[in-house]
Parts: sequence; structure tokens; C-alpha cells
Amino acid sequence: MKQKRFILPETEIPKQWYNIQADMKNKPMPPIHPGTKQPLKAEDLFPIFCEECARQELNQTDAWIDIPEEVREKYAYYRSTPLVRAYGLEEALGTPAHIYFKNESVNPLGSHKINSALPQAYYAKKEGVTNLTTETGAGQWGAALAYAAKVFGIESAVYQVKISYEQKPYRRSVMQVFGSQVTPSPSMSTRAGKDILTRDPNHQGSLGTAISEAVELAQMTPNCKYTLGSVLSHVSLHQTVIGLEAEKQMAMAGEYPDIVIACFGGGSNFSGIAFPFMRHTILEGRQTRYIAAEPKSCPKLTKGKFMYDFGDEAGYTPLLPMYSLGHDFKPALIHAGGLRYHGAGVIVSQLLKDGLMEAVDIAQQDSFSAGVLFARAEGIIPAPESCHAIAATVNEALKCKETGEEKVILFNLSGHGLMDMSAYDQFLAGALQNT
Amino acid sequence: MKQKRFILPETEIPKQWYNIQADMKNKPMPPIHPGTKQPLKAEDLFPIFCEECARQELNQTDAWIDIPEEVREKYAYYRSTPLVRAYGLEEALGTPAHIYFKNESVNPLGSHKINSALPQAYYAKKEGVTNLTTETGAGQWGAALAYAAKVFGIESAVYQVKISYEQKPYRRSVMQVFGSQVTPSPSMSTRAGKDILTRDPNHQGSLGTAISEAVELAQMTPNCKYTLGSVLSHVSLHQTVIGLEAEKQMAMAGEYPDIVIACFGGGSNFSGIAFPFMRHTILEGRQTRYIAAEPKSCPKLTKGKFMYDFGDEAGYTPLLPMYSLGHDFKPALIHAGGLRYHGAGVIVSQLLKDGLMEAVDIAQQDSFSAGVLFARAEGIIPAPESCHAIAATVNEALKCKETGEEKVILFNLSGHGLMDMSAYDQFLAGALQNT
Repeated sequence: MKQKRFILPETEIPKQWYNIQADMKNKPMPPIHPGTKQPLKAEDLFPIFCEECARQELNQTDAWIDIPEEVREKYAYYRSTPLVRAYGLEEALGTPAHIYFKNESVNPLGSHKINSALPQAYYAKKEGVTNLTTETGAGQWGAALAYAAKVFGIESAVYQVKISYEQKPYRRSVMQVFGSQVTPSPSMSTRAGKDILTRDPNHQGSLGTAISEAVELAQMTPNCKYTLGSVLSHVSLHQTVIGLEAEKQMAMAGEYPDIVIACFGGGSNFSGIAFPFMRHTILEGRQTRYIAAEPKSCPKLTKGKFMYDFGDEAGYTPLLPMYSLGHDFKPALIHAGGLRYHGAGVIVSQLLKDGLMEAVDIAQQDSFSAGVLFARAEGIIPAPESCHAIAATVNEALKCKETGEEKVILFNLSGHGLMDMSAYDQFLAGALQNT
Repeated sequence: MKQKRFILPETEIPKQWYNIQADMKNKPMPPIHPGTKQPLKAEDLFPIFCEECARQELNQTDAWIDIPEEVREKYAYYRSTPLVRAYGLEEALGTPAHIYFKNESVNPLGSHKINSALPQAYYAKKEGVTNLTTETGAGQWGAALAYAAKVFGIESAVYQVKISYEQKPYRRSVMQVFGSQVTPSPSMSTRAGKDILTRDPNHQGSLGTAISEAVELAQMTPNCKYTLGSVLSHVSLHQTVIGLEAEKQMAMAGEYPDIVIACFGGGSNFSGIAFPFMRHTILEGRQTRYIAAEPKSCPKLTKGKFMYDFGDEAGYTPLLPMYSLGHDFKPALIHAGGLRYHGAGVIVSQLLKDGLMEAVDIAQQDSFSAGVLFARAEGIIPAPESCHAIAATVNEALKCKETGEEKVILFNLSGHGLMDMSAYDQFLAGALQNT
């Protein structure tokens, strides 16, 4: 019997995260303070973020950062996640490629987001913070943060992008089970929300609008900090636990990936699986392709411009050097709510600029076709976001079928789609907008 | 760092199921043919069930039955499931008890049901069957069967209990993703359904009505067999993979359970976790308590009578010797759709009669209180069915708190509740019927 799953013993779960900034030849350009136009220092972020997260954000020197023991204790409840050889998908495609996926969908709350929610909530607790705010699209991040806050005894408030709040009501329920206050964004509860609704009363929300509201609420609330589920460098740092595990697990399978693929919203799950492998490309010249799969309707990597731009719609955040569609970009109402963001994280933006990675765009219809194919072959219904990674994987595997190459492809199954079934209903009914 | 998860290497996944019938001193009484009043032979079941399942159903001699390699290949995608030490729950309760749970919620489709769906679909395929029918309550079994049928290239049709079809629309979607035809039951598509609707046009369905419809469709369709997700002895047999793994995993943790707990609908997940431990009670006199947790509103074990009764509402099935509330019992519209069944499997009924196990009943409100407590402590939102097992576990753990005993409690987390969030919404809003 061929082995299908590779799981690390508890003792092999990483004790450090990997900070790729330290190894990059061209460092990311600095975030800029919108008032002073000066490069940002960690202290400038303290009013909004936990201090430790702010320091991690700008750390360009330490390649390895210790995972606090309290966080490792929580990781141990669900890590390592399985690395799975997708024999079913290979057979369905008739490809000679070896396809592996890292199954983050079996994490608590159903996605990789918990990997950063736990340390962010832990640092908040340690620094005496009593309240956290955040934004969420589809609700994967909001659910993870709600749980992590509960674990460490902190109150949480989540602004959920309005269209996702309506498309995916169960994720709101999940956040409420963990005691979180959930508000659809844009809302009348913040100045930013009121301004947006005044300009456009039918605004369906975006991650950009929800970030503005969450940042504003954090600033207006005593002893409250803001947390973010993607884009930022410290979030990508936390997610490297995925790739560090995957590297050991691929070794258990006796293989090494030729191609590493993940879907792309702000960059956290892509960074998480790709950076640990990319260090071998940077340091040892190892030839591996890294492919970010973004939605055709929100193509910041394939069609955006590299520029200094705000991270949110209202312009509350620092200016970030990134590939962006403009901070007032209104993405189409696709079901992959977690990918509806106008910009890319600063590290990924620099890596793309330097040609260390590639990007592809995937139409909504194609993403769900790939998702249903995968579900039927592997028994897991993937999140609409993850469907983009699967579609890109299918494309690469079919190229291998043409050429006969036995390439090793690894992709990150960032989450399950069990709360996104209305999207699958529409797809099966042929009623999905193919944007 | 204390170890929290225990996972078996692929080589340790059981190669045989455990058939407790062979070891029982008092064997279950035989099912009876309703026409001839004679004890049933396996051949009598061939028109409805796959032959191998029919033989397993009545096998009272072989304690160990080989798991076909093709099924083990599929098991290996997700087994072993983790055994988890619930430190979070212990802390929340302040109990000296050691609480473990077997986490079947991370299985494909989210519950233990896949463990029997795979062999049933496999045997069907092997015997040349092209179509399968079944019933489902909450949809856990229907989803598993839909996937298993797809895996082995068989068409499937599922009758879903009407109230669950409406309460849990996402599970219908899941079945449809796997290509299954899903009909709410009672329906006008069968004679049984028409009869029921004629008598009671507002009938909200029960597992008993859905079974009648699925059996009738199987009998009316060429090359079609019926499958069942619980109650029957061969289903319990397949589920023993849970307890056989748990036994090895408890040994990894250096413990042995004093109490084994599972929720109870027809008996499959209870049997699955309990029987492998119970063999040590039967054969070696090992003292362990086995507790089945059923809903207060469907109390076949605590309030039912031991009798020969039909397994379905229309009276299509053989007469089974079981604890029953009567085959026309209409259970309250609780959210634990998988527990809304009038009878208990014949093995469990005999064991209860012989005092080898206990049963407790749990009110709906108490089950959700326990579920939310567990979710906040462990990060997993349990299925409404599993909430009953958790409530019974909490009760036992609180007794330990009173007495100071460090008892070892093992329960089966049979599934997640991510598609049952409307029930949690009602609970949080205080709008849940406490039946």
C-alpha cells in the first residue's frame, strides 16, 4: 500500500518561524509614514499593533524567530497538519506529475488563519491588551481570531465585508460562538464607514473598507489593538510554520517540489508555504517555481502596479511599497472573499519584482471547476480561495501530461469550503458569474 | 510540553474490523421475516443489501473480519484520526478527570460516517451494483455515502429527512457536489412517501420515513441496492475501526479508559468506539463503563421497550429485536437530526438488556451548552449529535470533580457542526426549544 499521508511527530513541529526578509538580497522597501513621509519605525506601529508584532514586521536581520512556548502548546493541538499525496487527483487528470497538498483545512476553524491568530492573540495578552479588532472577508480569519482571542481571554470585534457577511452567514455564527462582536462593513459605527456609505450607499464592502473600520475602532477603544490576517510581514512570518513542516514532510515522502503553488489574497498562505522552500532558492540557487494564483477579477500581481499605496480604503494605514490596484479598487463580488484585496504584501511584492516568483490569474468559473474536480477525487470540498491554487495546480499537471514530465507539485489547501456551499450551489446550477 | 495528539503510523491502521457478536455470551436474537415469521437468513437480505453486507450482518462466529485492501487504501487518506487529550475542556471544568476524544470530525465530509460508506460502496461495486440509495437525517451519512459512491463510480440517490433538508441546506449542497440526487422525505416519489403524506400532509419526516422511501426506490430500480448509515450490525462492524485505533492510541498515551461515551442515534458511532474496549470486559472482565447519550426527546434506550419492531415507518424492513419507541414514533424537531430514530441496533439492544452498557438522556439545551463550552475550550464546533456525548462527558467529569477521582474518560467526537450553525444561532439567541 502506497503511503498517502505524512504527519510529523509532535517533537518535529517547528520551534521557530522563518523570516525571509533576513535572507533577501533586495530587502523590501520601507513602509512610509503618511504624515512625515519618513520610513516607519516599529514604535510608529505601537499605537495600532502589539509591540512584538510591530517589531517582527520590520525585522530584516533575524532569519529565525522563536515561536513562544505558549503558542507551540496551542499549535500542538492540530499541528503538524497532514501532507497528502493527491493520488485521486493525479488519476482524475491522468498526469505523470506527483501532486501533494498541505491540508490546512483540518485546522480548528477550517483554515491556515489560526496559525497567525494564535500568536497575535498571545502577544496581545502578554502585553496587557484586553480588546482586539480585526477585519475579515469570507470569515476564515475572523473565525480564527475570534477563537484565538477566546483562548487567551481577550474580547474581540470583527468587521466582516458586507457581501461575505451575507453570502456566508454560518461564518458569522462561528465567530459569535466564540463570543466575538461581528459587524458587516461598511457600517455606520465608524467615521470611515459613514464616509464610505455617504459616497456610495450600496457599497458591498471590501477588505480595504473593513480594515479602515477595524483600525479606527482599535484607535478609539482603550487598551485595544488591531490585528490583520494577511498582507503584513509578521503574518507571513507566522504562516511559515506551514512550509517548514511541508519541507520535512516532503523529505519523508522522499521528494522535493519543482513547483509550489498557493492562492493569493494578501499573501499570507502563499508566503507560508513558499518562503521556507524559497530560502533554498535564495541561499543555494535551488531551482523551484513559486506560483501565486489570484482571481482574474482582482489581479494585483498580474495587472497591478508597483507603488506606494495605503493598505485600506480610508487611508489610515502607513504607505506600503506594493503591487496594487489602488486602495479604492472595488473588487467584483466573487465568492473567494479572502482574495478580494487590492494589494500584495511588501515582501511578496519585492520577490515578484525580482523575478523570484510568478503569478497567474484564474477566472471564478475555472476555480470552481477545479474545486469540484478536487472534491470528487479527494473527498474534501475546498474553500473558494483554495480553488484558485487547485486550478493553477491542475494547469501545471496538465502541462506535465503533455510533456510527460514527472514534476513534483506542492500546493497549499488553505481551507475547506463547507461554509461556502451557496457558491457551489450557484456553480452547479450554472448561475455563477464568470469574472 | 505535554503531548496532546496521538496519531498512529499508517502501518498501524487496523487491517480487520472487530465483530463483537462472536464474543457475546447472549447473542442478539435473530431478525424475523415479517411474512414467514422465520429467522432471517443472509439470502433473505440479498434483494435489498449487498451480499457481503448481508453476510456480515448475521455473522455471529468470526470475531475478526478482514478490511478489503481497496477500503484500507481509502481509509489511509484520513486514518488514523487523532486521539486528543482535551486539556482545554479539563481546565474549563476544573476536573481531575483525564478527558480524551477521538476526533472523527476531521474525516472527509466531517464525520465518522465515511468509515462505513466506503466499504458499503466498495462491496456494491465489487458485486456489480450500479446504483445505491440511502436515507439521511442531518446529512452526515448522506454526504459520506455520496462521496463513497463517487469514489467507486456508482450513482447515488439520497432521501433526506425533510426537517433536516430545510434546517441544513449546506449538507444537501455537499451531496450534490458529489453528484448525488437528493430528495426531501417524505416525498411523492414513492408509494411509502405518498401514503405518509396522505395521512399527514405536514409530516416533517424522520429517519423511519426516509428509510422506507430509500428501500422502496432500491427495490424498484434495476441493479440497485440500499445502504444504511447506522442501526445495522454490519455498519457497527465497520465503525469499530474507531475504537481499535483508539485502543492503540490510549496505549500511546499510557492510559486506559474507565468510561467510554458516545452519542446514540441508531448505534453506529457508539458501537464503533465502545465495542473494541468492551471485548476486554466480555473476555477478561475488565471494568469499564460504556455510556450511550441519547436525546431526551427520542429516548429509545432510557424509555423505550425491548420488542420486535420494524426499522422503518412503512414496515418494509425485517422485524428487529430492539429497544424501540415504536416504528411510527415521531421525534421532536431537534437539530441533532442523526439521533431522531425510533430504535436501537440489535447488538446494542442485547448489550443494554444484559447490563453491559448504560444510557443517559440529554435535553437539547444542555447538549448545546456543552457544545459551546467544548468549542471555546478546544476550538472545534461539534455536531449537534456529538454535543450529546460531550454533555454526558461533562456530567461524568463534574462527578470526578466532586469526588476528586482522576478517572479516564474517552468520548467519540463523531462529527463537526459547521453545517449546523443555524442551530447554534438559535441557541445563542435563547430561542432553542428545550425538548
